[in-house]
Amino acid sequence: MSRPLILVTNDDGVTASGIRNLVEAVESFGDVVIVAPDKAQSGMGHAVTIGFPLRIQEVTGLFGSHKAWQTSGTPVDCVKLAVDKILHRKPDLLVSGINHGSNASINVIYSGTMSAAVEGAIEGIPSIGFSLCDYSPYADFSLAKEVVKEVVGAWFKKPQHELLLNVNIPKIERAEYRGLKVCRQAHSKWSENFDERKDPNGRPYFWMKGEFIVMDQSEDTDDAALKQGFATVVPVQFDMTAHHKKAAIADMLQL
Amino acid sequence: MSRPLILVTNDDGVTASGIRNLVEAVESFGDVVIVAPDKAQSGMGHAVTIGFPLRIQEVTGLFGSHKAWQTSGTPVDCVKLAVDKILHRKPDLLVSGINHGSNASINVIYSGTMSAAVEGAIEGIPSIGFSLCDYSPYADFSLAKEVVKEVVGAWFKKPQHELLLNVNIPKIERAEYRGLKVCRQAHSKWSENFDERKDPNGRPYFWMKGEFIVMDQSEDTDDAALKQGFATVVPVQFDMTAHHKKAAIADMLQL
Repeated sequence: MSRPLILVTNDDGVTASGIRNLVEAVESFGDVVIVAPDKAQSGMGHAVTIGFPLRIQEVTGLFGSHKAWQTSGTPVDCVKLAVDKILHRKPDLLVSGINHGSNASINVIYSGTMSAAVEGAIEGIPSIGFSLCDYSPYADFSLAKEVVKEVVGAWFKKPQHELLLNVNIPKIERAEYRGLKVCRQAHSKWSENFDERKDPNGRPYFWMKGEFIVMDQSEDTDDAALKQGFATVVPVQFDMTAHHKKAAIADMLQL
Repeated sequence: MSRPLILVTNDDGVTASGIRNLVEAVESFGDVVIVAPDKAQSGMGHAVTIGFPLRIQEVTGLFGSHKAWQTSGTPVDCVKLAVDKILHRKPDLLVSGINHGSNASINVIYSGTMSAAVEGAIEGIPSIGFSLCDYSPYADFSLAKEVVKEVVGAWFKKPQHELLLNVNIPKIERAEYRGLKVCRQAHSKWSENFDERKDPNGRPYFWMKGEFIVMDQSEDTDDAALKQGFATVVPVQFDMTAHHKKAAIADMLQL
């Protein structure tokens, strides 16, 4: 049997430390191919590029002997380009990250890292996004790499065809780590307070800055488990229907 | 009691015909303020602008006596800027659209129109996205406007605080219209087949082109109901947890 094909992508761009660490963590499981954005694409959500064409360029020197490409597109574009133009097949597994920063709770919706994984799952590829709760470009990925190996190893031992996971690793010392925990997404939001400045011509411009607010401290949420020292695993779906609200809406519409 | 404040946004940009039609459809229900992108932002998903500052410019002449602004940001940025810098309060209702093109089934994930509405709901604003299944800039919005009035009118008669709806209107003659139907999101995907071309220097570039594939023809899906002449109403949630998968994942991870 041939070795499994693993597609690696991210949203911090092909030169980020997180994606090199992810490649090192998964390379023992199969043949690794990297297709990632040529620049940071944080916060791109599930954006796709419709109005402009895309570029693909092979990259050497970053990932040892592994084949790698950078594209001018979003993380979701990278997945689509990889399947259609680079791999010419679906990979056996897609891993995205390791993101520099948390994608727990509501961040799953804004995250380019997770949107790449969601796109993989929509296309029928088992997909996992990994994020370390440390925004530093110089973050220590050693615990995160252990978590990647544990989760990916578990999947290879017991493969599930429909797989979409959001894995977050806390920023803690190894000794404080309490293991994996399956959780649900915490109810939370970013409350924005734009910073208004003036350009050299006196015209205003606005920088987004946000305060993160968690409205739900339940034990079974990813936010709570991360604070307790767990790495969190949230199974994710892309059916956004609020099935439990259908009856109330039909009533409101007098149907 | 003061008139309700209605925030109107979209992803096709402030000059699109769809947003003018949406304003005309809702202006009898309250005070309308428009905050929309200064250019088309289709397919932007839930993207936010992190690495660049944003501009806001007042727009006159497009919406009669209603106050209107365009921003350099994404649809989600527009909602955030509107609340923090323009309205200085949460609006009573957010409506997004009317999109030029379907946002039924999996399109809800890629859609800037729906992402603006999702952002509104995350921030606690009752929010509805409207889309007409006609990509033409010269589309006939008369049936769509009737649907907007019916749905928005029903909400004002029986307000629900937690509201997030994805409303799609079929491209049909008035006589073929069968009314509103509450549905679930159809399981579907875009299958990409990039169009490769050469630039004047002989270097390749790639245009995304997709084929839309519906894997689920059940009667209760939005895709099926639109084909039968209904306008579809899908209640949407932003908890992406696949709650039903938690046990299987815990088993895979041997937890």
